[in-house]
Amino acid sequence: MIFLNIITSSQNYLVKKLKTLATNKGRKRFGEFIVEGNKFALNIPKEWESVNTVFSESYAISNEAQIKKTGNPVILKDHIFSSVSGTVTPAGVLAVVKIRGFEFSDILSCPKKFIIIACNLQDPGNMGTLIRTANAAGASGVLVSNDSVDIWSPKVVRATTGSIFNIPIVIGDIKSMMIGLKDRGISLIAADLNAKKTPYQADLRKPLALIIGNESQGLSADMVALSDTTLKLPMALGVESLNASVASGILMYEVLRQRIGANA
Amino acid sequence: MIFLNIITSSQNYLVKKLKTLATNKGRKRFGEFIVEGNKFALNIPKEWESVNTVFSESYAISNEAQIKKTGNPVILKDHIFSSVSGTVTPAGVLAVVKIRGFEFSDILSCPKKFIIIACNLQDPGNMGTLIRTANAAGASGVLVSNDSVDIWSPKVVRATTGSIFNIPIVIGDIKSMMIGLKDRGISLIAADLNAKKTPYQADLRKPLALIIGNESQGLSADMVALSDTTLKLPMALGVESLNASVASGILMYEVLRQRIGANA
Repeated sequence: MIFLNIITSSQNYLVKKLKTLATNKGRKRFGEFIVEGNKFALNIPKEWESVNTVFSESYAISNEAQIKKTGNPVILKDHIFSSVSGTVTPAGVLAVVKIRGFEFSDILSCPKKFIIIACNLQDPGNMGTLIRTANAAGASGVLVSNDSVDIWSPKVVRATTGSIFNIPIVIGDIKSMMIGLKDRGISLIAADLNAKKTPYQADLRKPLALIIGNESQGLSADMVALSDTTLKLPMALGVESLNASVASGILMYEVLRQRIGANA
Repeated sequence: MIFLNIITSSQNYLVKKLKTLATNKGRKRFGEFIVEGNKFALNIPKEWESVNTVFSESYAISNEAQIKKTGNPVILKDHIFSSVSGTVTPAGVLAVVKIRGFEFSDILSCPKKFIIIACNLQDPGNMGTLIRTANAAGASGVLVSNDSVDIWSPKVVRATTGSIFNIPIVIGDIKSMMIGLKDRGISLIAADLNAKKTPYQADLRKPLALIIGNESQGLSADMVALSDTTLKLPMALGVESLNASVASGILMYEVLRQRIGANA
């Protein structure tokens, strides 16, 4: 099969747009983001709108059947594909997907009332991993503070390994969301290195939101003041802290453990 | 203060050596590794031998007192320092440290008998974070398979945030070490996505080694066969796996939780 419409110019509109989507500003402008890799890019859940599926020429040549099944495949010369890919060794497939805006109420309506709050998280790997773990641990949703790393950035999306599609995420003013949760009887539980109590001493079966702070500064004093409980994982002497995504994962699974009961 | 001996040439022996230490081969040849950042590079524990403390010129100018306290400070022109640094925005301080070889017996002699086995782990961030969490959770030591990422690489060292100095780590043939542990009555507990049991259904208070496999392939069949028990964390429908360092962190803290008792 010969592909007649291979894009060969870096001046092509779509190529320029793909480059723009690598930036926060560009994603805001178009309301779209990029998902890379055949596993995720070719399996966008139907609740999400895939705008384009883009292939590298060499991927297209060796996966003809797949290309035919794709609605409106776009094929780029390999070096053009590389120039828009966020990875060192591009898989040769990416999808442009419409950003789906969830509302605070979408998360509140979930019966489980197990919410994760990411407050000023800056590392894309940590943010993506937190979203992946929240999904795995069965959380109702993730609230992300305005000053956190953009969750639609390629590095965050990659680290979620598909979970970005499977759990509602709301970005917004975290303080007002926290007050909203409190008003609805949801306990605010903050991970805080100054806490006296361990998660093993707390009842985590009640409706709650787990608040995770910045990688190096932790949570600000007013966030801690707004919380109902602060918790700290026990740590060996001389160890100051855990990685943010690991600490949040341990806390999320302690919630899950307490809820499924000791024998599950 | 004027620094008389600033290294200005990239052809300088030490500069060449620092570049070599960024490679696995170079670290093997010299038996040394690099620790970056003032927090860790200036606080090498006394059980470890610091060979050189290296500063960038601009760091040295603004931290004179610190330089005077350092035994044999080496100062590099800023662009030379950048060329040997593994970070995009170098802190301006690094230490060259002798690799300390631990023996399998060092780990066995620890009374707690809580050992972590990293088997074919490839991502430096995961490996470093695993070491950091093992240290925090009070593990006796970490056994690392020969085919894993080199633990002395700058990215691993950075991700341990100092824990590389605080927990014994042995690199070697993992199968023979596993057999050695079994012979000494230490249970081999493998994290395995095919397992039927959750960690919450297992007694983790007994002497044990927790085995963590490769990020995408998990553990090989013969590793699983050699294990006494396999465990899998419960996960929401549609989620295939957790990040390796998060999964291992959750398991380590479940061991800790069971050992300190429910009320600790």
